[in-house]
Amino acid sequence: MASAVTPRNEDYSQWYLDIVKNANLAQNSAVRGCMIIKPYGYGIWERMQRQLDDMFKETGHQNAYFPIFIPKSFLSKEAAHVEGFAKECAVVTHYRLMNDPNGEGVIVDPSAKLEEELIVRPTSETIIWNTYRDWVTSYRDLPLLINQWANVVRWEMRTRLFLRTAEFLWQEGHTAHATEAEAQEETLKMQEVYATFAEEFMAMPVLRGVKTESERFAGAVNTYTIEALMQDGKALQAGTSHNLGQNFAKAFEVKFQDENNKEQYVWATSWGVSTRLIGGLIMTHSDDEGLVLPPKLAPIQVVIIPIPKPNEELDAKAHEIMAELKSRGIRVSYDNDKKKRPGFKFAENELKGIPVRLGLGKRDLANGTIEVARRDTKEKASQPLEGIVDHVASLLEEIQQNLFQTALDFREEHSHTVDTMEEFQAILDQDIPGFIYAHWDGTAETEQKIKELTKASIRCIPNDSVGEVGKCILTGGASERRVVFARAY
Amino acid sequence: MASAVTPRNEDYSQWYLDIVKNANLAQNSAVRGCMIIKPYGYGIWERMQRQLDDMFKETGHQNAYFPIFIPKSFLSKEAAHVEGFAKECAVVTHYRLMNDPNGEGVIVDPSAKLEEELIVRPTSETIIWNTYRDWVTSYRDLPLLINQWANVVRWEMRTRLFLRTAEFLWQEGHTAHATEAEAQEETLKMQEVYATFAEEFMAMPVLRGVKTESERFAGAVNTYTIEALMQDGKALQAGTSHNLGQNFAKAFEVKFQDENNKEQYVWATSWGVSTRLIGGLIMTHSDDEGLVLPPKLAPIQVVIIPIPKPNEELDAKAHEIMAELKSRGIRVSYDNDKKKRPGFKFAENELKGIPVRLGLGKRDLANGTIEVARRDTKEKASQPLEGIVDHVASLLEEIQQNLFQTALDFREEHSHTVDTMEEFQAILDQDIPGFIYAHWDGTAETEQKIKELTKASIRCIPNDSVGEVGKCILTGGASERRVVFARAY
Repeated sequence: MASAVTPRNEDYSQWYLDIVKNANLAQNSAVRGCMIIKPYGYGIWERMQRQLDDMFKETGHQNAYFPIFIPKSFLSKEAAHVEGFAKECAVVTHYRLMNDPNGEGVIVDPSAKLEEELIVRPTSETIIWNTYRDWVTSYRDLPLLINQWANVVRWEMRTRLFLRTAEFLWQEGHTAHATEAEAQEETLKMQEVYATFAEEFMAMPVLRGVKTESERFAGAVNTYTIEALMQDGKALQAGTSHNLGQNFAKAFEVKFQDENNKEQYVWATSWGVSTRLIGGLIMTHSDDEGLVLPPKLAPIQVVIIPIPKPNEELDAKAHEIMAELKSRGIRVSYDNDKKKRPGFKFAENELKGIPVRLGLGKRDLANGTIEVARRDTKEKASQPLEGIVDHVASLLEEIQQNLFQTALDFREEHSHTVDTMEEFQAILDQDIPGFIYAHWDGTAETEQKIKELTKASIRCIPNDSVGEVGKCILTGGASERRVVFARAY
Repeated sequence: MASAVTPRNEDYSQWYLDIVKNANLAQNSAVRGCMIIKPYGYGIWERMQRQLDDMFKETGHQNAYFPIFIPKSFLSKEAAHVEGFAKECAVVTHYRLMNDPNGEGVIVDPSAKLEEELIVRPTSETIIWNTYRDWVTSYRDLPLLINQWANVVRWEMRTRLFLRTAEFLWQEGHTAHATEAEAQEETLKMQEVYATFAEEFMAMPVLRGVKTESERFAGAVNTYTIEALMQDGKALQAGTSHNLGQNFAKAFEVKFQDENNKEQYVWATSWGVSTRLIGGLIMTHSDDEGLVLPPKLAPIQVVIIPIPKPNEELDAKAHEIMAELKSRGIRVSYDNDKKKRPGFKFAENELKGIPVRLGLGKRDLANGTIEVARRDTKEKASQPLEGIVDHVASLLEEIQQNLFQTALDFREEHSHTVDTMEEFQAILDQDIPGFIYAHWDGTAETEQKIKELTKASIRCIPNDSVGEVGKCILTGGASERRVVFARAY
């Protein structure tokens, strides 16, 4: 329907919602904060899942499935963990409905009250570590390298499609190791898997870094993150990998006999990415015409449009090209609706972010040519039909690369190094503020103060940050390296 | 660890639980009735998912995702539906925990009570049809062919791993059509997809039939089923496909303008299979030595065991064979643990149901042979190493076929035609009763009476049943065809 999209520079939030709606990715549901992922949006998620799942398996992980419900008492066993999640838990208290004796409809049956309330999982560390106690007795049982694809629920008050929803889909890895070093290695390995996925598949450059204490996952010793920069200059935390130390092993009494027959607590990690990535994908590449998708994740990579409308000759040629593209593993569709004009179809397919459009006209056919349009740069060119499949295949790679490079250039352009609060604030006052590299005195108090003053938080301390003596922009206190600030989703 | 499995003829229920436990498929969790699917069990589910998903897509369906929560009032909109599900609903009433002011731990925050309680979906017709109202306005929007992979919760009182659990994983298709005929066609098409999957991939023969009114899905006009026969002579409902008529369209006001601009209610279907299939897979093929898996769904199809233990020469040969098998798409592993003896490994791999075992010994190597053992028939033979990959590939096909044929022979052997209640009861008194084809007068009352008397229910009226005039075994009332009775899971 190629409905209009609000321009980004007019209202970025509305532009985002327009894209999600008009490209048919998702919508709000009748349940507060819970979204409906529509087929086209789910198609993107399926490609993400498949790729990530392959990467998890290549790194030795297996999938399993744990219950959606967590006994309330489990959540309390790790003090920081319950503190972090208690305020946003959906709680099951009853297990039956009954006819309302006073009138119509059904009510909750008061006699069907659970002895212990159940929490709908906001994350699964507690139920999983309660299980690992039975699975681990000896060093021979380690490492446990498990991943779960699941839905989780966090009763957030302010929600936004894909970016923050009460229910979301994700994967959560939960691993158990014999040594601290091995757990740390796993934590960093999975951060790198996420970074590779973001950059090579989503074409979304990310900073790899570690969170400050106050931004850590509830129950973690350290949280590693990948942080992306959106087009409006705000950061998006796109994936996290946590070194959980022995916190959950101690809370759930998970011990093993080491090679010297000594009893030890197990070392843990957990790591996750979610449907939030789709929000990041949208805000990294899309434009005022609609969605822009990197070819590797596009449900449809190429659309063929007959000009001005389908006929026997054009259909035959289109099917021939489609067959060839498909044999090369390229996902192609033929937009042969007779009731829509080409211009309308162009706009519709732009809105859907299909990377390459092939316009096939009668004259083209006579000349042995076809019109090739790229979604990313909007360049159009007439190409010989001979060799068109090779051309499209390499064009898809070029688009994938160009999207990444464009996003990387954007990030570099919007990364700033500042030494004073005035400079800091000046950057934040720009239309597109971006990442700010600045010195910080290392205290949670200063971090909090800066956040209150500017709404910018420390996104991470980059893994590759180099030592540099400096003074905190707020307090002048000593600092040994710059950290990355930004306003964030 | 090759723990002992209770023999089937001693205690079939215990045998089943032993297989599930000792083959590391699943276990009970700390939450009543909710299971943990362990990596090996989940590996089987992943192969089922991938195959079914391909079949759904080949038949034109797309995946989407709808919320896990259903507002209580939605459930009540379709009268039969709420009647069917109200008694087993997990109900979310609150969205926050708080510190217990009187002591330790956390309690439900009474101030965080939901205005309307939410049901954890037992099935998604209501939330989906509430959404379809926005998606359908014209005949051009139809058909909607949507599938969802999800978890659902039914608070069953008596649970059993895979077969009946409070939470289970499944897929649910929900389609919307312009005509009754098209909805009926879809219902039968998906029944046939399920039957094909069961027979060709699970090697589990099924009867295709329609349920009687009293066994219908709550809210359906007709429920089509596939029914398998387990080794203990009990039936397993393995998948259902429902023609929902206009029941949900009317309950949720989903209408469309037809080609003549006339407003009409939409016609609906829904269909689902679940992790219950894994229970069916176990009880169709496995034996007293452990799990038996059909090659098409086995996470590992071939295991190579070095005899008596791994060494450089055997390792090299094993890796050579593995590489060749993998290049043919065969899933193979090498059991090179030095601490376990071959006999122990044989038992362990039998327990896991790996279809083909290759025993590679020093003498074999010198002779240019290898020992090939099949899990299904337990036959062993020495085979030339030359051409072993071709041999294994065709053996896997043979095993797949043999498992199906064996199960089909078993079903035929345990299918009976009876004309009196005495004969009926005599069959049910056998150790392995099976399917009973008998005449029934067509009333719910008689159906219920027979169930009370014998614990046997009508599994289905077969799609291919031929007209045959007869008398009901209980009442002598007129009957026009035989229906299939059995005791069931």
